[in-house]
Amino acid sequence: MSNPMFDVIKSDLEVLEEGLLRAVEAPDALVTEVGEHLVTSGGKRIRPALALLSARGGKAFCSERIMPLAEALELIHMASLVHDDVIDDADTRRGAETANAKWDNQVAILSGDYIFARAFSIIAAEGYGDYVSKRLAELVCNLSVGEIIQDQAAFSGARTQEEYYDRIQKKTADFLEICCELGGIVGGMDAEEAARMADYGHCIGMAFQITDDLLDIEQTAEKIGKPAGNDIRQGIVTLPVLRALETSPEAETLRTILVDQDMEDADVERALAIVKATDAVDYSKGKVDEFLAHAKEVLPQSLPKDVREAFEMVADFIGDREF
Amino acid sequence: MSNPMFDVIKSDLEVLEEGLLRAVEAPDALVTEVGEHLVTSGGKRIRPALALLSARGGKAFCSERIMPLAEALELIHMASLVHDDVIDDADTRRGAETANAKWDNQVAILSGDYIFARAFSIIAAEGYGDYVSKRLAELVCNLSVGEIIQDQAAFSGARTQEEYYDRIQKKTADFLEICCELGGIVGGMDAEEAARMADYGHCIGMAFQITDDLLDIEQTAEKIGKPAGNDIRQGIVTLPVLRALETSPEAETLRTILVDQDMEDADVERALAIVKATDAVDYSKGKVDEFLAHAKEVLPQSLPKDVREAFEMVADFIGDREF
Repeated sequence: MSNPMFDVIKSDLEVLEEGLLRAVEAPDALVTEVGEHLVTSGGKRIRPALALLSARGGKAFCSERIMPLAEALELIHMASLVHDDVIDDADTRRGAETANAKWDNQVAILSGDYIFARAFSIIAAEGYGDYVSKRLAELVCNLSVGEIIQDQAAFSGARTQEEYYDRIQKKTADFLEICCELGGIVGGMDAEEAARMADYGHCIGMAFQITDDLLDIEQTAEKIGKPAGNDIRQGIVTLPVLRALETSPEAETLRTILVDQDMEDADVERALAIVKATDAVDYSKGKVDEFLAHAKEVLPQSLPKDVREAFEMVADFIGDREF
Repeated sequence: MSNPMFDVIKSDLEVLEEGLLRAVEAPDALVTEVGEHLVTSGGKRIRPALALLSARGGKAFCSERIMPLAEALELIHMASLVHDDVIDDADTRRGAETANAKWDNQVAILSGDYIFARAFSIIAAEGYGDYVSKRLAELVCNLSVGEIIQDQAAFSGARTQEEYYDRIQKKTADFLEICCELGGIVGGMDAEEAARMADYGHCIGMAFQITDDLLDIEQTAEKIGKPAGNDIRQGIVTLPVLRALETSPEAETLRTILVDQDMEDADVERALAIVKATDAVDYSKGKVDEFLAHAKEVLPQSLPKDVREAFEMVADFIGDREF
């Protein structure tokens, strides 16, 4: 992570890595080994970074006090990816072997459960109080429901933008919202400041996911390491596709491809061409810009200059994202 | 559950069923449907029953106050069974279709995650404080680790009694211990009374699991609906088998069978015969009796008569168990 946006929490992030390794230590060598593999297999640590940054915006910032929350947030993310990889029967993630590939589904499912539970154990042991526990538990509920909703929606053709926004909120934005909100609370922010940080997190989360969905339309295989149109191939309808369904003269052709569970590569290419022939990409980028502009606007006035600048850089980074 | 041991909490258990149905309501129809299927597919509700009974032994018993804890305990049990069924690729449980069979592994894994998280959400929303959340999170950690340990130990031949006791503690006894302890705490017991209830729960849990392991040796297929020797077939070494390995003149033959991943029915029969020819069954029943005697002894003096009698009946029921 060479981007300067996290410079202000550089040392916190180093401490975090050590904390994560301690957090996955289990009373069984295999469970510990799985946890260590997951921790050392990378990850951008965006969720704990947001919490650490937000805590630095509070009046009672204490690195030791925020660290367990930062750990728990990354553990929840990690556990949910472990279960996703079992579901997708994925072999690799970020270039490293998945737990289900390196061991087996049993080990991966149970290790995921273990890591989820470790997160809640760490939170309770630190004594943040019931509100923090409740928000994190609701987050895990939403992550699970979001995945199931996405799967149900697959190959069902046109959906509304409302459904799309609800889905990406549950899948991505809620998580970043909670990181920013709870980080602020633990750092000593008052209710209004924490609510503003929550709003910021929600907006960058929505922008992040729309950008991710745009990359699937725009990028070439060389650039993102996987073929474009992956979402279309899986029958997942994203914002640019929804826009094309609303505006393209070839909307019916696009709709027919999207509900075809046996679509060929040529169909995917055709669908991508139809989407790109409309204003769908620019329209979606406009939405990203709206979310990011709102995110920057709502940042609390009380933030120290370096923290505010870091949050602004995070927003800009999401807007510029090309990976 | 016609046994009179739970008569004193009969109405609580009816309220519990309604609470469980409300607890699994989700912002998605499919997730709700899965939850309702799991709730209505039966289960003996032993864990919430222990918590409800224990709460009635406290000075501040309040049915509304204990109910969310009782619900959360059953939800955690339910979620862990859902994941077990995915791992075992099981089609039925208690005569009903499993979630993975009725839907698929994705739905089952994510619904399990959802139900785990609902339990923690309910606990946090009720505001029992961090100790209760911490104990429940550690419980889920132990359940996962216990399963992984059992799987690793399979087909590895002789293990020590110490390892066996550690495994069944994580797998079964810790859960019943926590039900009794936390029920007591929420019901207003002081620290010593709650510790005694924890000890009681631990002992009946150990007795329960040894009895379960004995049934696998003793019972005929007609009686338990599955062939005897199932644990042996899966390479799982239980207390009676450990005892036979220590005392049988045919211990080496038994050991050879236990590490054979391709054992035949005749091998299982041979192993059962070797175990039954020793004092292993009586020895194990002796251990059950010891645990149950200790369980009854440690019950707090302060328990109301009907609650104490119910806990004594539970212990007797476990000793007499033939199902």
